Amino acid sequence: MNVHAKRPLRPETVTTGPIQGSRKVYAEVAPGIRVPFREIALSKESGEPPVRVYDASGPYTDSAFTPDLSAGLPATRTWLASRANLETYEGRALKPEDNGNVSADGLVPPCPANRAPRRGTGAGPVTQYEFARAGLITEEMIYVAHRENLAREKAVENAAATVADGESFGASIPEFVTPEFVRSEIARGRAIIPSNINHPELEPQIIGRNFLVKVNANIGNSAVTSSVAEEVEKMVWSIRWGADTVMDLSTGRNIHNIRDWILRNSPVPIGTVPIYQALEKVNGDATKLDWEVFKDTLIEQAEQGVDYFTIHAGVRLAYVPLTANRVTGIVSRGGSIMARWCLSHHKESFLYERFGDICDIMRKYDVSFSLGDGLRPGSGADANDRAQFAELETLGELTKVAWDKGCQVMIEGPGHVAMHKIKVNMDKQLRECGEAPFYTLGPLTTDIAPGYDHITSGIGAAMIGWFGTAMLCYVTPKEHLGLPNRDDVKTGVITYRIAAHAADLAKGHPAAHLRDDAISRARFDFRWEDQFNLGLDPDTARAFHDETLPKDVHKVAHFCSMCGPKFCSMKITQDLRAEVQAMGENEKRALGLTAEQIEAAEGMAAKSAEFMAGGGKLYVEQ
Amino acid sequence: MNVHAKRPLRPETVTTGPIQGSRKVYAEVAPGIRVPFREIALSKESGEPPVRVYDASGPYTDSAFTPDLSAGLPATRTWLASRANLETYEGRALKPEDNGNVSADGLVPPCPANRAPRRGTGAGPVTQYEFARAGLITEEMIYVAHRENLAREKAVENAAATVADGESFGASIPEFVTPEFVRSEIARGRAIIPSNINHPELEPQIIGRNFLVKVNANIGNSAVTSSVAEEVEKMVWSIRWGADTVMDLSTGRNIHNIRDWILRNSPVPIGTVPIYQALEKVNGDATKLDWEVFKDTLIEQAEQGVDYFTIHAGVRLAYVPLTANRVTGIVSRGGSIMARWCLSHHKESFLYERFGDICDIMRKYDVSFSLGDGLRPGSGADANDRAQFAELETLGELTKVAWDKGCQVMIEGPGHVAMHKIKVNMDKQLRECGEAPFYTLGPLTTDIAPGYDHITSGIGAAMIGWFGTAMLCYVTPKEHLGLPNRDDVKTGVITYRIAAHAADLAKGHPAAHLRDDAISRARFDFRWEDQFNLGLDPDTARAFHDETLPKDVHKVAHFCSMCGPKFCSMKITQDLRAEVQAMGENEKRALGLTAEQIEAAEGMAAKSAEFMAGGGKLYVEQ
Repeated sequence: MNVHAKRPLRPETVTTGPIQGSRKVYAEVAPGIRVPFREIALSKESGEPPVRVYDASGPYTDSAFTPDLSAGLPATRTWLASRANLETYEGRALKPEDNGNVSADGLVPPCPANRAPRRGTGAGPVTQYEFARAGLITEEMIYVAHRENLAREKAVENAAATVADGESFGASIPEFVTPEFVRSEIARGRAIIPSNINHPELEPQIIGRNFLVKVNANIGNSAVTSSVAEEVEKMVWSIRWGADTVMDLSTGRNIHNIRDWILRNSPVPIGTVPIYQALEKVNGDATKLDWEVFKDTLIEQAEQGVDYFTIHAGVRLAYVPLTANRVTGIVSRGGSIMARWCLSHHKESFLYERFGDICDIMRKYDVSFSLGDGLRPGSGADANDRAQFAELETLGELTKVAWDKGCQVMIEGPGHVAMHKIKVNMDKQLRECGEAPFYTLGPLTTDIAPGYDHITSGIGAAMIGWFGTAMLCYVTPKEHLGLPNRDDVKTGVITYRIAAHAADLAKGHPAAHLRDDAISRARFDFRWEDQFNLGLDPDTARAFHDETLPKDVHKVAHFCSMCGPKFCSMKITQDLRAEVQAMGENEKRALGLTAEQIEAAEGMAAKSAEFMAGGGKLYVEQ
Repeated sequence: MNVHAKRPLRPETVTTGPIQGSRKVYAEVAPGIRVPFREIALSKESGEPPVRVYDASGPYTDSAFTPDLSAGLPATRTWLASRANLETYEGRALKPEDNGNVSADGLVPPCPANRAPRRGTGAGPVTQYEFARAGLITEEMIYVAHRENLAREKAVENAAATVADGESFGASIPEFVTPEFVRSEIARGRAIIPSNINHPELEPQIIGRNFLVKVNANIGNSAVTSSVAEEVEKMVWSIRWGADTVMDLSTGRNIHNIRDWILRNSPVPIGTVPIYQALEKVNGDATKLDWEVFKDTLIEQAEQGVDYFTIHAGVRLAYVPLTANRVTGIVSRGGSIMARWCLSHHKESFLYERFGDICDIMRKYDVSFSLGDGLRPGSGADANDRAQFAELETLGELTKVAWDKGCQVMIEGPGHVAMHKIKVNMDKQLRECGEAPFYTLGPLTTDIAPGYDHITSGIGAAMIGWFGTAMLCYVTPKEHLGLPNRDDVKTGVITYRIAAHAADLAKGHPAAHLRDDAISRARFDFRWEDQFNLGLDPDTARAFHDETLPKDVHKVAHFCSMCGPKFCSMKITQDLRAEVQAMGENEKRALGLTAEQIEAAEGMAAKSAEFMAGGGKLYVEQ
């Protein structure tokens, strides 16, 4: 199932077309604000309306869309053109080192869709945080409110359906999301909308623990770039399967220009780690890093439209020796670079010392902070140690500085943490960082399964998501071993969608269970096509089913492929329902049922009748 | 990576040979009691002793072993020959319906290794429970004590290594496991050793929450059996990758004879669901089941040596209507069969009414109970409902009956349960069932990922294992969709080994972290071969690594394949360590370090020196 094999060697375009069984729909919630969803149609037999789900995949899954990578995506945030406090300016001149000093014949051309950058002017609100603090609701806030909300209206319509419950550990998930609720959450620092003013192609998303849990996928350039489309495709492929944001961790040649192509074609927030590029500019020698090269890189990437920056400003000089006795030392690239710098110069981190200046730059473009956890544990043995928590305390201090400067902030978290130590991380993060959104990698709950770290970490991700983490950074099966291919990326994204959704269910998100209930009804009714299409990966579900029962007639078979018709428990239960329905009240009382139980049993009538009407006789013999 | 493809179409034997990088070792703990382990050798460079791990794979992974399926495995439990209170007798005559009335030319021959069955006589102790209650320590108890224990001695030897911690939720995991501790746990009903006296080939294992968490894999016969070896291979393959017990859920033709072949060649406990075979004997008509056919089936399978039976005696007549309003009704095959029977006859379940008689039979052979959860939820919507918990309460009542009759008991649990509802299950089970071991399927934490239910359920399995579940029944990627193939079985088993191990770590098992720490050190030292071999699946880890860095020289490369030499955080950290080590105390104090921090930093000296001696200069340029 290596999809690579089916694509040309030098692909000229990217994957398009709807997910099987779905179509893209839009809700025009205000003039110029059109919010996308994915609608999964159910079979006529079901008698159920389509299921509407959150959809970060952008226009690529709209059957009416044909991509033109050179033109970029059409702007979603058209409102930016008339927003106050912004100016268009010439922008920083491109330098050879921005593209890793690549030779002329190796140079990837710049994306023709480039335009002059915008920046904030004066003291009036520029960032979503500043608007929120000023009591102003932006278009982005309206957009995300509807985006998060629609399924919730359905939940209330279906009041008769099963009711959500959950344990939210102090989160405040509302029945409905209003733009005012979004504003208040952003103003409190509890949520962010990563949305650089130079990224008009963005379909805004909100990250915060009182909203749906989000998933990030990492991509990076190949050593040999065969085409621009291949690099853009990595982003398109990630969001197709459910990534809500994408981090571009590329290094080396052409990274500036490729980043342009990615941004101009990305409907999701793009994050980067600017220190990686800064390090390239000083030829990989961490000791040569300084404020000037870092500042220049921040402006370069902010002008391009990067939505959030990982900044490892919490790796302070004094914390470096705290890692000396660790089993796995410092495993964060950014963390080790800064530790190297601090120790070589015997000086406090310039990221920490210039943090206010960094804020001033990021505010002008509304680039959100993702305060990096440079000292995160790289093994269970190092989890929750003094180095990790010392840095987290500093991140809490820096969060307040960034808020004072008007910036949006989220906080990165571990890493490798056994299950019993996960909640401590979440609780400490909420406390130290004033409930700023937490964004964690995994955590991996054991170290002993290289090749399966999407699973070791998916366990930890689901749990920390439940406890309050707002976004989960995916881990692929290749973690610790190599670079993920297309299949690995898909596996990683889907594993993390599972974790995020399991977390939403456990937190008691009012609408999360609707899709679970719909697929469970499909399962019980033997609506195989509906079951495939309601799943996170219809292609794989169908392929697995077809391995055992390949014929089309089996797609309407009233038994499952595991037990066959004679042994099917669901079939037996369906028959039973009809019988219980046919019983009189006295008969039921004779079974020893209480009045309450009898009433409960009556409820099956409609369901059972529905089944009998819908082809209850159809048993295919194997 | 479909291993099937590499095997002949009609295999005559089974998979043998050690797991890559490991060898089988035995500890002779008493005359005639030889306990197997797997030893993972580490590279000379590491300076570390081999890591000894629990090993349920039997002689098949011993390089000195050549299987002879007709002869069966050599007896491990030689002591049974001289055990008191047992008699050998002629046994029940084989009937045509035992093999599904298969025609003569379709008949799989009986296993030549068959011998006359044994059974208990009189009132003296026969079961492990009875021995334990009488204060007697059996050979099985000595065997499992050493099996569970050896790594723990290592933990104490390595007192300088990181110390285990954990949250055990009231479990009582000892520093050392003694045979007397095993006896006392069994006597309290908190652990079982499923060990039919007719299964002398068994390498005994203990299941209880104060021991290592175990994993069960399910196997079933193929519609067309191509060879006996193919059926035995399913068991061998499951235990190779880490299944501790195997349930044979076969139905249809030849099941009696194939079960013989499996048992005579199985070093692990074999479980079955006798109602499946009983149903076959009445031509699949649940209403025709009765005590006589069920009793006959129990004796048939007990004589063969099945170690535990799933008995759905908790599906009572009055509970059936409680399932009528469920989204997915009854999803347990055994549960639906019994519900069908109860409702058709308007009578209480004969399994419930004859439970004492069932106990009397199972006691004679020391077949352990696995009290089935016939009303487990098949969807998150049905989790923790009245039907499920009513049955669990009845299972608690039956546990006490079985104990009074001298039987060993464990309890089956769900199913489909969102994260926030998992702990309620565990707590209620402990309370209702007097801490009898819990044995759960998953639970699946969301319903929306067909094709990935090893992951949706691995999350729940890790959590419920942490909370106290003693054995986790695996789920493969094909769950809900089809029959698992060889790759699916391996993926399911390894996913569940991850869950079980993550649970052991979180519970604070004193030895669980040793393997994590060893692999983490290997990772930090760039000992790639050690990292592969210490993992749960060395073959896959190596293959993934080789996709990116295929050359042998890369196996000793001091950088990881993700970042390359220039960006490798581990490399940078190793360099840093040496520098911090070289600092004087005043220098460190100048960094702002406290005395305590300086002392902590000093500890790195040995580690760093070790690294420098071990080839610290070896950086391969890409």
